[in-house]
Amino acid sequence: MKRSFIREILEAIDSDTISFAGGLPDESLFPTKSISEITQKILCDPSTLQYSISSGLPSLREKIASHYCELGLQTGVENILITTGAQQAIDLISRVYFKNGVVAEAPAYLGALNTFSANGCVIHPIKLNKDGIDFDKFYASFKHIKNAYLMSDFQNPTGNQYDTKTREKLAEAALKCDGIIVDDGAYMELYFENRLPMLPSFAPNNTLHLGSFSKILAPGLRLGWIRGDKKLLQPILALKERADLHTSTLSQKIADEFLGSSELNIHLSKIRSAYKAKCDTLAKELELNLPTFRFQKPKGGMFIYGSFEDEIDAFKLTMECLKNKAVFVPGSEFYCVNHKRNEARFNFTHSSSFDTKRGIEIISNTYQSFFR
Amino acid sequence: MKRSFIREILEAIDSDTISFAGGLPDESLFPTKSISEITQKILCDPSTLQYSISSGLPSLREKIASHYCELGLQTGVENILITTGAQQAIDLISRVYFKNGVVAEAPAYLGALNTFSANGCVIHPIKLNKDGIDFDKFYASFKHIKNAYLMSDFQNPTGNQYDTKTREKLAEAALKCDGIIVDDGAYMELYFENRLPMLPSFAPNNTLHLGSFSKILAPGLRLGWIRGDKKLLQPILALKERADLHTSTLSQKIADEFLGSSELNIHLSKIRSAYKAKCDTLAKELELNLPTFRFQKPKGGMFIYGSFEDEIDAFKLTMECLKNKAVFVPGSEFYCVNHKRNEARFNFTHSSSFDTKRGIEIISNTYQSFFR
Repeated sequence: MKRSFIREILEAIDSDTISFAGGLPDESLFPTKSISEITQKILCDPSTLQYSISSGLPSLREKIASHYCELGLQTGVENILITTGAQQAIDLISRVYFKNGVVAEAPAYLGALNTFSANGCVIHPIKLNKDGIDFDKFYASFKHIKNAYLMSDFQNPTGNQYDTKTREKLAEAALKCDGIIVDDGAYMELYFENRLPMLPSFAPNNTLHLGSFSKILAPGLRLGWIRGDKKLLQPILALKERADLHTSTLSQKIADEFLGSSELNIHLSKIRSAYKAKCDTLAKELELNLPTFRFQKPKGGMFIYGSFEDEIDAFKLTMECLKNKAVFVPGSEFYCVNHKRNEARFNFTHSSSFDTKRGIEIISNTYQSFFR
Repeated sequence: MKRSFIREILEAIDSDTISFAGGLPDESLFPTKSISEITQKILCDPSTLQYSISSGLPSLREKIASHYCELGLQTGVENILITTGAQQAIDLISRVYFKNGVVAEAPAYLGALNTFSANGCVIHPIKLNKDGIDFDKFYASFKHIKNAYLMSDFQNPTGNQYDTKTREKLAEAALKCDGIIVDDGAYMELYFENRLPMLPSFAPNNTLHLGSFSKILAPGLRLGWIRGDKKLLQPILALKERADLHTSTLSQKIADEFLGSSELNIHLSKIRSAYKAKCDTLAKELELNLPTFRFQKPKGGMFIYGSFEDEIDAFKLTMECLKNKAVFVPGSEFYCVNHKRNEARFNFTHSSSFDTKRGIEIISNTYQSFFR
């Protein structure tokens, strides 16, 4: 089993390399002061440091459930299972439900593909298009496999937002085949303009929706959740108990207090507008310095994805750039088969405006010296 | 897949039931003030809330490695992998190494047995005896299976401490067969008098030693580790990355600061003597109120284990006691086959002295009304 390129890069680069590689939020935007105050408060109660129940703290689950209800998706506390990040949700779900294989996007979130492979789940990749996914090809596979993993909101790596029609058709397919669509909503709250109706709202009992506090609060807490039908969650809960007993009580209580405060919406507005500005900066720098790199500006999320000319090997370019202290992820990493070698993903949330300019200049210079 | 009896009990009982069921530490002993001060300090650095590396924070791993060195087991930072509790270590190790089955204790830690079953690992149970494990029977299985999971220090559920001779023989067997013995050291630091040489010190490269902050600091942090040969850890790390990316950065930094302070040893002395006193209280109450319950007082850990008369069904007794607001765990839960129905495990660390008396009285009264 190979380790993930992104994780290895993240762990190996020194602090003076400008990285567009990870999906790291901007730590200067963390609500550190509030988290510090919350932590003082909750540590007065020793149960914050004690074992807790495997499904997650009821009060946190209730708040997450309410948020779904506000978005028009009827959800109770019994429909929420807390996980150690959305990554754990992917691992548990694939171990319970994907024995027959899974239909996935191409390109797709690398951490999911690696987990599916590690768990022996055969991946059936379906190409993405401008509406989201190529529905006819999706359906041709899904009707046999009956399991799918996708990201309808600001997909990783492409930044695509599935259109409403495609969401409806996918939900219909899940109902018709009595299958399960896992919709990974890790980036859902990071929209720049508006949100679209959630895919699960069209098929609440045949979908598992994944959520994460990594992108909206802080990834260091390792906190995510699954929203789904109680019967679907039951075997996942039994495996969750075996995987790590339960998720950090401290992390759960921090999130619970933060959601209960008036600050969440203020914080979300703040990061949405900050990330939109950062996206604009990166887009401008790419247009200016790498004019042959074609991409569509995303409407949310954390990434700009696009392609160089056909003859460019983005993996080789990455390796050259690394020597010059800048790095991004070659698109090939996000495909399990038939990868496109000229594609690339750039994160825009983590680097400062200054580093973004400097980093893209390095990549542009490297590109010009070695590849033109 | 059934859920664990203990987890279900823990989640279902109301606050006025006196529980001897879980392995919960006494939360009044948590170093809450220090953790609160540490948290204030580390939250000034935003990296405390950011993603971190999959193997765990180098500075924490270094401190854990030093502790092994102090105990005479040469260990470097590359020999430590941080996990989301020792439970995650059990899950990851069994997925990587126990495909051919695993030799385990009878009775054994329920959370390990459940995880092995969930991961399709055939369990080969070997009876425990007063020295630790029945070595001849162990070896007869181990030479074929080449994998074992055991707890040489204050075993859960029996409280047994393997004697030094048995530790040496087990280590020799691991070397001779080039197998792997996983020694779960979750209770290792909770000795009342003295520690014995660690089993892994006799076979450093053929053992994986599990550690946990749940019993010595706070379980709500979900923090444990694996100590082992770098080559053995490599595939576990690759799976760890897929399982949850990494363990809570916040939890790791709290433990790192706590280990770096002068307080650890003071804290350990404090909980060791408190737990010894609590063990004495429970033992006295059992002798007084349940004189037919035979047990040997443990020299550390969290549990008193013993047996009622042959004809007593401890599971039925538990169920009756639950109605009267007291609960323990019937021994049958800790066996995968051929369980003894008259055995029982009592936790002594969590209940107050007052509750211990009251709880054992309830159990005694229930026992007398229904089973004599």
